[in-house]
Amino acid sequence: MRIDECNVSTALDVIGGKWKPLILWALKQKPHRFGELRRKIPGTSQKVLTEQLRQLERAGIIERRILPDKRAHTEYRLSPYGGTLGPALMALADWGARHRKRP
Amino acid sequence: MRIDECNVSTALDVIGGKWKPLILWALKQKPHRFGELRRKIPGTSQKVLTEQLRQLERAGIIERRILPDKRAHTEYRLSPYGGTLGPALMALADWGARHRKRP
Repeated sequence: MRIDECNVSTALDVIGGKWKPLILWALKQKPHRFGELRRKIPGTSQKVLTEQLRQLERAGIIERRILPDKRAHTEYRLSPYGGTLGPALMALADWGARHRKRP
Repeated sequence: MRIDECNVSTALDVIGGKWKPLILWALKQKPHRFGELRRKIPGTSQKVLTEQLRQLERAGIIERRILPDKRAHTEYRLSPYGGTLGPALMALADWGARHRKRP
């Protein structure tokens, strides 16, 4: 089986890496403005977070919109397609929680 | 949320990366000897595959045993604990298959 034939690899190409799981987990709960995401995910830089968000947007997983308020905030949310990741994210979170409790 | 607080990140620390999804997907189907895994996952080297298998073994996900045949083959299989990854692997594979069919 080559990497490009493995569906698990295909999924992890889109949602894996250091920051995307945190971004997706946050957006799964509710839409976030950019500044909120930065505060919620300490350790990432503005540049890195922007790039990760762009990749997720290009993959159709998240949507970006400019909020019509004075400061033109940018808000990110899961797209309907990104919502289809729900079962995979939940299964990973369940297993991760179990793994952390392991002696 | 820091990385070490995200259960999805915890799970992907264990099963993510370039080769582990392929190894786990193969072992989820059936136990494999080392040589079988190498043939099934072209592109990896003996050294890299060995290291990946050791990491999965240390994490308690897979088990290694020496087959009592003349050539002392080594066989790898999912441990009972590794079997608890089933739902997460299936959910990722389902989503990955869906994502690949996307226009």
